[in-house]
Amino acid sequence: MSRSNEKDWTPHRERLHEIIFEADTPAGKAFDVALLIMILLSVAVVMLESIAELNRLYHQWFLMLEWTFTILFTLEYLLRLYSIRRPWWYAASFFGVIDLLAIIPTYLSLFIAGTHYLIVIRALRLLRVFRIFKLGHFMKEGFIIIKAIQASRAKIFVFLSFITVLVLIIGSVMYLVEGGSNPGFSSIPRSIYWSIVTLTTVGFGDITPQTGLGQFFSAIVMILGYAVIAVPTGIVSAEFIQQARSPQNTQACQYCGREGHADDARYCKYCGHAL
Amino acid sequence: MSRSNEKDWTPHRERLHEIIFEADTPAGKAFDVALLIMILLSVAVVMLESIAELNRLYHQWFLMLEWTFTILFTLEYLLRLYSIRRPWWYAASFFGVIDLLAIIPTYLSLFIAGTHYLIVIRALRLLRVFRIFKLGHFMKEGFIIIKAIQASRAKIFVFLSFITVLVLIIGSVMYLVEGGSNPGFSSIPRSIYWSIVTLTTVGFGDITPQTGLGQFFSAIVMILGYAVIAVPTGIVSAEFIQQARSPQNTQACQYCGREGHADDARYCKYCGHAL
Amino acid sequence: MSRSNEKDWTPHRERLHEIIFEADTPAGKAFDVALLIMILLSVAVVMLESIAELNRLYHQWFLMLEWTFTILFTLEYLLRLYSIRRPWWYAASFFGVIDLLAIIPTYLSLFIAGTHYLIVIRALRLLRVFRIFKLGHFMKEGFIIIKAIQASRAKIFVFLSFITVLVLIIGSVMYLVEGGSNPGFSSIPRSIYWSIVTLTTVGFGDITPQTGLGQFFSAIVMILGYAVIAVPTGIVSAEFIQQARSPQNTQACQYCGREGHADDARYCKYCGHAL
Amino acid sequence: MSRSNEKDWTPHRERLHEIIFEADTPAGKAFDVALLIMILLSVAVVMLESIAELNRLYHQWFLMLEWTFTILFTLEYLLRLYSIRRPWWYAASFFGVIDLLAIIPTYLSLFIAGTHYLIVIRALRLLRVFRIFKLGHFMKEGFIIIKAIQASRAKIFVFLSFITVLVLIIGSVMYLVEGGSNPGFSSIPRSIYWSIVTLTTVGFGDITPQTGLGQFFSAIVMILGYAVIAVPTGIVSAEFIQQARSPQNTQACQYCGREGHADDARYCKYCGHAL
Repeated sequence: MSRSNEKDWTPHRERLHEIIFEADTPAGKAFDVALLIMILLSVAVVMLESIAELNRLYHQWFLMLEWTFTILFTLEYLLRLYSIRRPWWYAASFFGVIDLLAIIPTYLSLFIAGTHYLIVIRALRLLRVFRIFKLGHFMKEGFIIIKAIQASRAKIFVFLSFITVLVLIIGSVMYLVEGGSNPGFSSIPRSIYWSIVTLTTVGFGDITPQTGLGQFFSAIVMILGYAVIAVPTGIVSAEFIQQARSPQNTQACQYCGREGHADDARYCKYCGHAL
Repeated sequence: MSRSNEKDWTPHRERLHEIIFEADTPAGKAFDVALLIMILLSVAVVMLESIAELNRLYHQWFLMLEWTFTILFTLEYLLRLYSIRRPWWYAASFFGVIDLLAIIPTYLSLFIAGTHYLIVIRALRLLRVFRIFKLGHFMKEGFIIIKAIQASRAKIFVFLSFITVLVLIIGSVMYLVEGGSNPGFSSIPRSIYWSIVTLTTVGFGDITPQTGLGQFFSAIVMILGYAVIAVPTGIVSAEFIQQARSPQNTQACQYCGREGHADDARYCKYCGHAL
Repeated sequence: MSRSNEKDWTPHRERLHEIIFEADTPAGKAFDVALLIMILLSVAVVMLESIAELNRLYHQWFLMLEWTFTILFTLEYLLRLYSIRRPWWYAASFFGVIDLLAIIPTYLSLFIAGTHYLIVIRALRLLRVFRIFKLGHFMKEGFIIIKAIQASRAKIFVFLSFITVLVLIIGSVMYLVEGGSNPGFSSIPRSIYWSIVTLTTVGFGDITPQTGLGQFFSAIVMILGYAVIAVPTGIVSAEFIQQARSPQNTQACQYCGREGHADDARYCKYCGHAL
Repeated sequence: MSRSNEKDWTPHRERLHEIIFEADTPAGKAFDVALLIMILLSVAVVMLESIAELNRLYHQWFLMLEWTFTILFTLEYLLRLYSIRRPWWYAASFFGVIDLLAIIPTYLSLFIAGTHYLIVIRALRLLRVFRIFKLGHFMKEGFIIIKAIQASRAKIFVFLSFITVLVLIIGSVMYLVEGGSNPGFSSIPRSIYWSIVTLTTVGFGDITPQTGLGQFFSAIVMILGYAVIAVPTGIVSAEFIQQARSPQNTQACQYCGREGHADDARYCKYCGHAL
């Protein structure tokens, strides 16, 4: 429907668009599945390459595979730009940016060493998996999760602000209490790191209170964290329940005007007239 | 009701079936309780055998007990096959496969050393405990849990896909940040292992960030994990609440016979007849 | 109202009963507050005594205080038996048993060394704190929590059975995977201990997987634990919501017969008649 | 509306009040944003100063910046007192006390060494961030969180009392079980610290059970903690859901003026008049 390059738009490009961008046709689905497998393999190669022993033995193979995948993904990116009517619209979209970022690091590694590990950003391309399932109900479920999180956004922002101030103060108090005798609490930023580790109940144990007072204060922080962890869970649970309840409340009976019918209702449950 | 071996079906086998497969009669219940105790003892023997000091002292006893239990379970398995009208139907069922897998490892250990520890799969046979309680409401409660999890299946799949991509990216970033100086982050797979340990708030502390930047990034990951843990809890909570609300829907329409009406419904929502 | 010792029941004992057993009168409340403070002090003495340095310095003081508290609690126990009409009814009640168990260990320590630490069971007497608040709404809130947990009992039993089988299998598999090379997984019971530490997201880090396969399997266990932790939370949340919803559904309007009025409603919200 | 210093109240002070205390005018908003940035910078200076290497290099700079911020905050405090009609009302308010506490430590450090770290209490001033957003819906969301927590107050108090008694008993039992052989459980207070670390699923791993009996008991404690963590989450979730349901209650009766009516109410539930 673009006005610019309407005339040079050929059935050939139309077909290419269907294969590359859609997953409704068998060819389009096959393309997406093949792409996903290639992304998985390419991420696996980067992961294996990072293991020193394997890299020593198969360095040439990893290099070759990485360049093969990068060249194939570059071709795919160019074909996407070619087969869409509004190339800029795609290039600026979420997946367009990801697709570009997924090929740049390998080229960059020719000039700057070490950057090629950045291609793990390709993992984000795996989110395309939902495109294949889009005919199913996975997209809907994903949207419910996103809607529940979005609806809780303001509450979570308030909560995170509160947590930020809380960990600043806990960290500083622990620095004052433990700082002198315990090398783990050698500075306030490190103490704040400890307070986040503790409040989120992760508890690495790389930094632990040693003095009696520090342990007493830590115990209070942990019990506090116990209550605090209930808040985001409560927020999100309440949203999910709202989401689960809302789909059924939209249709009103034309006869008695009452709402609150179930999704699968064909007759008004109050007066018995057809909906 | 099987058509195949109807004629050679004797009251003797009928009775055996009742004892072995049902838990309604006193004899059937006694058989199931005795079986459970034997499974528990047999699992306990394997556990105790794995303790090196005990194995040195009582090796002969453990060996003898293990073979005794295995032979008894083999007899039980053969009796089950004998007393059921459709042996293949049982052999291919969930419990049939478990029952077979629970006896194979001991025989296999005659040929391949070390395999006999696989008999801990017998622990799965403990799930038979619910058969004994089946007259009570435990089965119903179990079904509610399973239904709640099944109903959340699609949401949990979407959530796990997202988590997978997330830990891939967190792991890779931590490898870039900490990899050089910290032996704990020596490869991307190890860094991904760390990111799962952190995001799930397990926090072993066998691998911990050492650099300031790594600790800062970890803090963000932990706070993220804090919010993220709320999502599956919210999903499952919402489902349980849905399940708790649905039992109201036991009323069936006398006209069309369909169920699932709301508490306050006066007319069938499918056919419009008064309830 | 007891038939046995009605005649020798004096106003003096009646008054004693009011002070010791009730918290409605000023004297009764004062007695309960004093008792709570003494229990707290007595528990604090045991705690401080267990610190080796303090015990070396103040051993005589601790011994004296412990005997003082024990004699006072013994007197209180005897007075309780004396002032109640049915001494056996009290002696066999929850608090009666606790009260007795709280004084026995000190006397026992005359004969068997080390037993006097058992007096920490006195901490259970602190639950009396709710008696003081009983005029408030704390009792009601406590009952709501207990009711919610009781209503979830069957579900939690099913869940714990499942968890038990799960940790048996995870522990055994980890023993097979890590047992050979990692001293932390030296036996199946230790591996089961590890699997509980991991599945509950506690993650001490005293035992950690060392092999790549063990870490991969652990990662799956942790993500599983992530989903599994949502189940009891969902069960209990659903119960609390049920509890929060049910109080208001009992009263029906005498005029239109409809229910669902709020706790504080004085007029029917559907027809406007007084409730 | 104050009666006391009404006559010496000038438009100049009125304008100052608007800038300093309100965030509705552009000048007022700019003042609040600038103040927040200064608080953030001042907290950052304290944090950086606590890092030994940085303090060695830039000690003079940190000292200068800290005094600059303290003098600016002192000026701001005096201006707040000057521009408000009821200075004592402000000085005794939550933010008034925080504002004073945020400047005292620096002056105190002239007399007593080390106290200047107490200025991290300035972090509490960051809570002013919500003043800037007050026109938005952040305040409302914050109120929902606070209301949900307040409504759960009694339940959480009961829950915390129960947890306190629980950790006292678990700690004492672990002291009896592990105390003799394990230096980590050298006293009851340390064992209680461990039991809090374990029950809250933090799991530092600085103290871990070593004996078989201790590990068995720990496993029970962890599974208990699993169930116990569900309780505060359930309490707060139920409250959030209640809060999410109550916003329907904005309609006030035109006759008696009372709010809190249900969605489907047609008559006031307090006085019976039509809504």
